[in-house]
Amino acid sequence: MENGSKIKWGFRGNEELTTASGITIRGILNMIMDNLDATDKRPVIPLGHGDPSVFPCFRTTYIAEDAMVDALLSAKFNSYAPTVGILPARRCIAEHLSRDLPYKLSPDDVYLTIGGAQAIEVALTVLARPGANILLPRPGYPYYEARAAFSNLQVRHFDLLPEKGWEVDLDAVEALADENTVAMVIINPGNPCGNVFTYQHLEKVAGTARKLGILVIADEVYDHLAFGVNPFVPMGVFGSIAPVLTVGSISKRWIVPGWRLGWLVTSDPNGILKETKIVECIKGCLNISSDPATFIQGAVPRILEQTKEDFFMKIINILRQTSGICYDKIKEIPCITCPHKPEGSMFAMVKLNVSLLEDINDDLDFCTKLAKEESVIVLPGVAVGLKNWLRITFAIEPSSLEDGLGRIKSFYQRHSKQQ
Amino acid sequence: MENGSKIKWGFRGNEELTTASGITIRGILNMIMDNLDATDKRPVIPLGHGDPSVFPCFRTTYIAEDAMVDALLSAKFNSYAPTVGILPARRCIAEHLSRDLPYKLSPDDVYLTIGGAQAIEVALTVLARPGANILLPRPGYPYYEARAAFSNLQVRHFDLLPEKGWEVDLDAVEALADENTVAMVIINPGNPCGNVFTYQHLEKVAGTARKLGILVIADEVYDHLAFGVNPFVPMGVFGSIAPVLTVGSISKRWIVPGWRLGWLVTSDPNGILKETKIVECIKGCLNISSDPATFIQGAVPRILEQTKEDFFMKIINILRQTSGICYDKIKEIPCITCPHKPEGSMFAMVKLNVSLLEDINDDLDFCTKLAKEESVIVLPGVAVGLKNWLRITFAIEPSSLEDGLGRIKSFYQRHSKQQ
Repeated sequence: MENGSKIKWGFRGNEELTTASGITIRGILNMIMDNLDATDKRPVIPLGHGDPSVFPCFRTTYIAEDAMVDALLSAKFNSYAPTVGILPARRCIAEHLSRDLPYKLSPDDVYLTIGGAQAIEVALTVLARPGANILLPRPGYPYYEARAAFSNLQVRHFDLLPEKGWEVDLDAVEALADENTVAMVIINPGNPCGNVFTYQHLEKVAGTARKLGILVIADEVYDHLAFGVNPFVPMGVFGSIAPVLTVGSISKRWIVPGWRLGWLVTSDPNGILKETKIVECIKGCLNISSDPATFIQGAVPRILEQTKEDFFMKIINILRQTSGICYDKIKEIPCITCPHKPEGSMFAMVKLNVSLLEDINDDLDFCTKLAKEESVIVLPGVAVGLKNWLRITFAIEPSSLEDGLGRIKSFYQRHSKQQ
Repeated sequence: MENGSKIKWGFRGNEELTTASGITIRGILNMIMDNLDATDKRPVIPLGHGDPSVFPCFRTTYIAEDAMVDALLSAKFNSYAPTVGILPARRCIAEHLSRDLPYKLSPDDVYLTIGGAQAIEVALTVLARPGANILLPRPGYPYYEARAAFSNLQVRHFDLLPEKGWEVDLDAVEALADENTVAMVIINPGNPCGNVFTYQHLEKVAGTARKLGILVIADEVYDHLAFGVNPFVPMGVFGSIAPVLTVGSISKRWIVPGWRLGWLVTSDPNGILKETKIVECIKGCLNISSDPATFIQGAVPRILEQTKEDFFMKIINILRQTSGICYDKIKEIPCITCPHKPEGSMFAMVKLNVSLLEDINDDLDFCTKLAKEESVIVLPGVAVGLKNWLRITFAIEPSSLEDGLGRIKSFYQRHSKQQ
């Protein structure tokens, strides 16, 4: 038989996929990590991504682990789950979220998803139609851009304003929207900016959405991780002004991103999402999608109801401490400035002044050389839409964070322009 | 503020999703279960789906449960995984599958997925391009039709031949294919037919695929669940004749469909799938998709390496016994005939002769009334592409199976035409 490669094979990969997945945080971080110097005997300091679960001080609560083990060993959750998720988990998430809302969510408002990521995927898939466009924040979370590209949903960017604590430029939102705009996305607490929106600002966001006739996708995967002046307010509070699709997860608050349990919630007391067939299409989309593992769904009620306040306080206190360390140490490094002290999520967004540096072209070059020379990983701003900025996570062990920022300072000193 | 419903909202759900998800097995079974009579005090007998995990005799091995608990409690797998899956799991699956192949798979041939379902999703997404078509078996597994519809991949059906033990009608495959055909799907051991393809037939399938220049998607989620004369032979054995994308899972062999751990494997020693960018696009697709829970990936090596042969034998022996009960009892019910004794998977496909029945219009009507009158759930053939057939699962406790088939016999006697 002749060699297979001489046959004319009639299939070929759909290259839209490689385009859509072109810029992802994981992809860029992998590229930067390829530059690590194996001869550097110091530990690598990972300031690139929002996943502190490997650090002992961020270990999840035993309540969550026990709930998972018991659900698994009960053998009651080895079978397939309904496509929308099992009822006890949906009911419990509805009650959990309703505590912060002026109305009560029903279990039917809650759809279980594979982490926050699948909730984003479902929301964007449901909204896509020929010619439609969606408004995304800049800087933002590039998974939205990737999923929008895959669904042929056109993307328009509005700015978050560093001088206003990273609030949404609502004038820009109004200027960008047209009759084909279907939704705007806000991420609160902010990724990558580490800000927490005020009640007043969220109300204005809702008012703008209402005026434009669009819905709000509220990405709240960092919900309740707020440690500054502004308390966390869920966008769903304003669901009667404009309908809200809330994206949530246990990944960040319980520090278990690998468990892949999230939710998409219709925060919409007026039932607009039902009228416009969004609800029906969410169900249709989930019918042809994969589900989170059933026993993880089975563990959700105990995880949500029994986790003690002291676990949440411990995490918040560490984040408050490390965000402070981060903010203070950055001040000692002239080539980067943080316009707004982080008060939520796990990140600070800092501006890079390359004109102070001898041989650094841009943020990507900075991060590549920093990885090579100092074994410190930082995300270049270009990955989140802002060239010559950096996203630094402070959600790591305090001593490692100090070590990492110290190395960035040495890196600066070595590369700074001679005056 | 005026009522939200008076605003002109500019979004609407993408109704392609409700169309694509129109016929799913879960949807049809739910519809049939809506007819159950709550006043019937007998237990419901579920002969509709392939998920025996609720029955004590089908409980998974303690080896698998222990591996999961240890992975979870190690706290080493709480973080995000690489999009293709963690290396130890990929390596172990490659070794596990290579035992039955004439060449060695590499870990890079293995992509971890959320059950077999996501592997199907990825395969069809990667192959979709404008105008392309795919050849699917009839009867088959409707998730392929749903994902193809969602990806705008045109579907053409070839028959499986009941008189030939449900072999593929390869003449029909050749007649259906054209220059836009990209792949054909085979499911082995068969769902819904319960057949197991011979080595010789699979070799012919590969030869046909090669002649047509198409790849083979080999759905082997029921791999090794063979208890008749034909041993299970993986399609990958013929990967050098035509490239194969193998869909696999721990769901069926370990009876844990709710754990959502599967794989997509390139069984392609000649590297055609790399040349044609299929490999690159699989990675691109996974970069923008959700992942299986990390600790489940972490448990895979122990599950695959340490599960004892006696667990597999126990399951096979129960299935051999229940398939025999099923086949024998069906012979006692004149209105249904099984053309081929099941020898694999969890299903028998039986032909329904409505002309022997007084007041039954078709398979859907049969299943609806059977649910109502006898509390027995059976899948109508229309759900898998064959009107006036039924798919009956025998993967339940033997005593329940006898009870269920006895009730079907009573149902027949009550509805049979008076001679």
